[in-house]
Amino acid sequence: MSERERSHWAWGYTDAFPDEPGREALAAQVGALLGREVSLRPLPTLESARLSDPRVLPPVSLAPISSAAPKDRILHTYGKGYRDLVRAYRGDFSVAPDWVSFPRSEEDIEQLLAHCAVEGIAVIPYGGGTSVVGGIEASVGDRPRGVVSLDLRRLDRVLEIEPVSRSARIQAGATGPVLEEQLAPHGLTLRHFPQSFEFSTLGGWIATRAGGHFATLYTHIDDLVSSIRMITPAGTWASRRLPASGAGPNPDRLALGSEGILGVITEAWVRLQARPRYRASASVTFPRFADGVRACRMLAQSGLYPSNCRLLDRTDALLGGVFVDGEAVLLLAFESADHPLGPSMDRALVITAEAGGICPEGPVFREERGEGARAQATYKQSFFRAPYLQSALVSLGVLADTFETACTWDRFEALDAAVHEAVLPALQRALGGGVLARRFTHVYPDGPAPYYTFIGPARDGHELETWAAIKDAASHAILASGGTITHHHAVGRVHRPYFRAERPEPFEAALRAAKRAVDPAGIMNPGALFEPDER
Amino acid sequence: MSERERSHWAWGYTDAFPDEPGREALAAQVGALLGREVSLRPLPTLESARLSDPRVLPPVSLAPISSAAPKDRILHTYGKGYRDLVRAYRGDFSVAPDWVSFPRSEEDIEQLLAHCAVEGIAVIPYGGGTSVVGGIEASVGDRPRGVVSLDLRRLDRVLEIEPVSRSARIQAGATGPVLEEQLAPHGLTLRHFPQSFEFSTLGGWIATRAGGHFATLYTHIDDLVSSIRMITPAGTWASRRLPASGAGPNPDRLALGSEGILGVITEAWVRLQARPRYRASASVTFPRFADGVRACRMLAQSGLYPSNCRLLDRTDALLGGVFVDGEAVLLLAFESADHPLGPSMDRALVITAEAGGICPEGPVFREERGEGARAQATYKQSFFRAPYLQSALVSLGVLADTFETACTWDRFEALDAAVHEAVLPALQRALGGGVLARRFTHVYPDGPAPYYTFIGPARDGHELETWAAIKDAASHAILASGGTITHHHAVGRVHRPYFRAERPEPFEAALRAAKRAVDPAGIMNPGALFEPDER
Repeated sequence: MSERERSHWAWGYTDAFPDEPGREALAAQVGALLGREVSLRPLPTLESARLSDPRVLPPVSLAPISSAAPKDRILHTYGKGYRDLVRAYRGDFSVAPDWVSFPRSEEDIEQLLAHCAVEGIAVIPYGGGTSVVGGIEASVGDRPRGVVSLDLRRLDRVLEIEPVSRSARIQAGATGPVLEEQLAPHGLTLRHFPQSFEFSTLGGWIATRAGGHFATLYTHIDDLVSSIRMITPAGTWASRRLPASGAGPNPDRLALGSEGILGVITEAWVRLQARPRYRASASVTFPRFADGVRACRMLAQSGLYPSNCRLLDRTDALLGGVFVDGEAVLLLAFESADHPLGPSMDRALVITAEAGGICPEGPVFREERGEGARAQATYKQSFFRAPYLQSALVSLGVLADTFETACTWDRFEALDAAVHEAVLPALQRALGGGVLARRFTHVYPDGPAPYYTFIGPARDGHELETWAAIKDAASHAILASGGTITHHHAVGRVHRPYFRAERPEPFEAALRAAKRAVDPAGIMNPGALFEPDER
Repeated sequence: MSERERSHWAWGYTDAFPDEPGREALAAQVGALLGREVSLRPLPTLESARLSDPRVLPPVSLAPISSAAPKDRILHTYGKGYRDLVRAYRGDFSVAPDWVSFPRSEEDIEQLLAHCAVEGIAVIPYGGGTSVVGGIEASVGDRPRGVVSLDLRRLDRVLEIEPVSRSARIQAGATGPVLEEQLAPHGLTLRHFPQSFEFSTLGGWIATRAGGHFATLYTHIDDLVSSIRMITPAGTWASRRLPASGAGPNPDRLALGSEGILGVITEAWVRLQARPRYRASASVTFPRFADGVRACRMLAQSGLYPSNCRLLDRTDALLGGVFVDGEAVLLLAFESADHPLGPSMDRALVITAEAGGICPEGPVFREERGEGARAQATYKQSFFRAPYLQSALVSLGVLADTFETACTWDRFEALDAAVHEAVLPALQRALGGGVLARRFTHVYPDGPAPYYTFIGPARDGHELETWAAIKDAASHAILASGGTITHHHAVGRVHRPYFRAERPEPFEAALRAAKRAVDPAGIMNPGALFEPDER
């Protein structure tokens, strides 16, 4: 269990939140960006948090693993999306769960589910609490008599490492750093680095089909999972550990993305990789964003499989502190534990040049034996720092959020135009202005995963409505242009109405029926993915 | 629609079946292998086929697309597994469907399903009829009043080609050659070559999670599908065409492997590739099979992604007419439409040498511009010829079949030993001898897909019991050793009891419930994947 204190309202550790000089510098920076004065607001205290008394309490049998203490309930009320930050900043914890359980074993989980099924109490599996889509929020409809947050933090061990197949059996509550630390002595890595890496967990990644940092090939956790154990109210769902199979629909693929509605994921066998030895990187700039898009498409279809292929537009580069002499910059990288990367990088730079890109500094090649780990850590620190800044912006009265999608290459130009046509006027109407930045986080042979950031001055007291209007405009633009409502942020409760427009209708019927089969009392995270059943 | 006549009992086209001199040569060859005389038996005629009268007939409204003619019913009775070939050879077509429908459109399918739901008639989607696991056989339990085989051959068109994302929308009834022919003028290929390629269809591949010829990376059709349309009795299941998504469990992954129990797949958007320009190949021999296994593992974990990485043991090489000076030979190849393959092949040969392999002839590199297509065709001909030989062996009274699996690397040695310990005595007991050959068809970072061939002299009249005993011994050995009952041959009816042992129990409950939700009358291919509901 972590000893550093987590903020009750903001992203991450309390001691890592920007201090006063840090917030002042951020205020100056974002004020310049938005062309208006931005000033510091006081930070909320835990004491000012408001929540109701629990409606139900844990039975004596569950007391050793349960807590109804206000602080635990508060810490398990929200994820870390913009609307979560705003509500928590305001001290509004009215949707807090009634209690929190910290099971130590699958038996504890079985006992908890059995109690809740009999009593009609909803159960929300909780990993790192980093959902940005309301996936762990106790908005469960009017049927349950209460809500328990089931925190998996005590199940955080790497149980087995099997080096021949480069696989490990890992408990669902292990966070990124905790599992990587246990793998490192074996020279192995899961190599799955979502931006929430520091806090999010293996079980959470599986439940939400999380996307990692790497741009091609094994982008989602889906591809790294070789078997899953999940405790459902109807029994244990344990798949066979296999490299591949063709026997019926893949059971793991039904657990992947199930967002807690079928059961509690307790562990998984995952595919590891040797730690990279060779690295190559380059920055390529383009006169027009469309040229960068074309380069990304050609790279994605080349069979070269870069580990990084991150295209930033000028605004996004500015926000990220990346210098760009042009309208777009492509951060390109290759990694291998096996072979030098000269041929791959050389060919990639020929491709980007054909698309009009220039790489004035040339590529950088590194061969690492141990000491390289430090450089990587520095890079990661800045990547993992971004969510702290979003929380700090909320404390400055600035609205800042991201949304992301994936679409086929032929549809990207129209989708991008539709997003701009929807979001910029929405920002103007609601806030009198703001900025919209874009990047590709992942690229596939048949399409990119575009990722947008919007920032504007929030109107005090109206943050949630303003945000909802912009989010809705963006979501409709994406869906109408053939994109998906999310490439790697899951559905939860926020994306539910848009997911409804995207999924095949009989598939919803099939999934609801599957849920009823393994969760007849309807206690597992009701309200995630689709509307909860009515009373 | 194909004009060449398909055999009513054997694999493929009648005119491609080995002639008398061909059968005599095969008899001599396999006689030498088995150490006993093998002689020709007469071939069965269509006229001698026995089947019952239909129990139900198509209504007038479906008459234009339906046939209850004996020949059509006979041609839709069996797939092409060993037990299918034996029963058809004997003229036993007692499980023939009552009629066959050849829909021209989704509307035809909807009308057919509606009629069958009302009348309690089972519907079995039929693509190329190449199932080796009884997937299309009208053994549907005692509830349905009759059975219709729904043949998709009239839906065989490439409807759209979208070159920017390199994607195409293709109807489910298109066979491999028919869809590749329509893609070729655009310089594109689906690059999915199962051994059944000539006859099997896109819809069949999706319904059974078919494996292609290529050894790494995109091995199953699963990875090549970006959306699916499926007509269920409860409505149209149409997913959104996307390069990737994280929105809930992937609906396509529930259709993939559904084997017709949820609905009829009518079309899909698939991911294409540019036709390869660069090719590299090499044959590497190993003093021991275990050395070859180690080389395959190192290659699979190298990130080099060979297109072919086919390890044959001495017996398998002999059967395939490949010369081997050692105990194993690795057929290694790389392909690219984008870049020369020297660095990849050079590194791969360093890896195989480290594992004890030698490549006396060295690698062969080719750059192809059009004329290369012919060489590829020759290779494919011999690959695609194997199923004809199995049918011919049945006509020689020889039992010949294959089974396949996938397991993690750490388990392969024990699995392989268990298979040998189970199958060789079973062959000895039942047939007084026989041979068992093995290969890897696909290799993954965490494990291989082993593929076994067994051949022995059949005992006239006892073929099915003998085969069942050997199959059962092999299947139990595989499951007990941590393998899957199938890497790419599907479940159907043959693998049903073994699939039961492999799948998570709550997953079966979920899948049965999903089926009931979209197929409330229980008409869709009852008996595939799991036991049909009782009356």
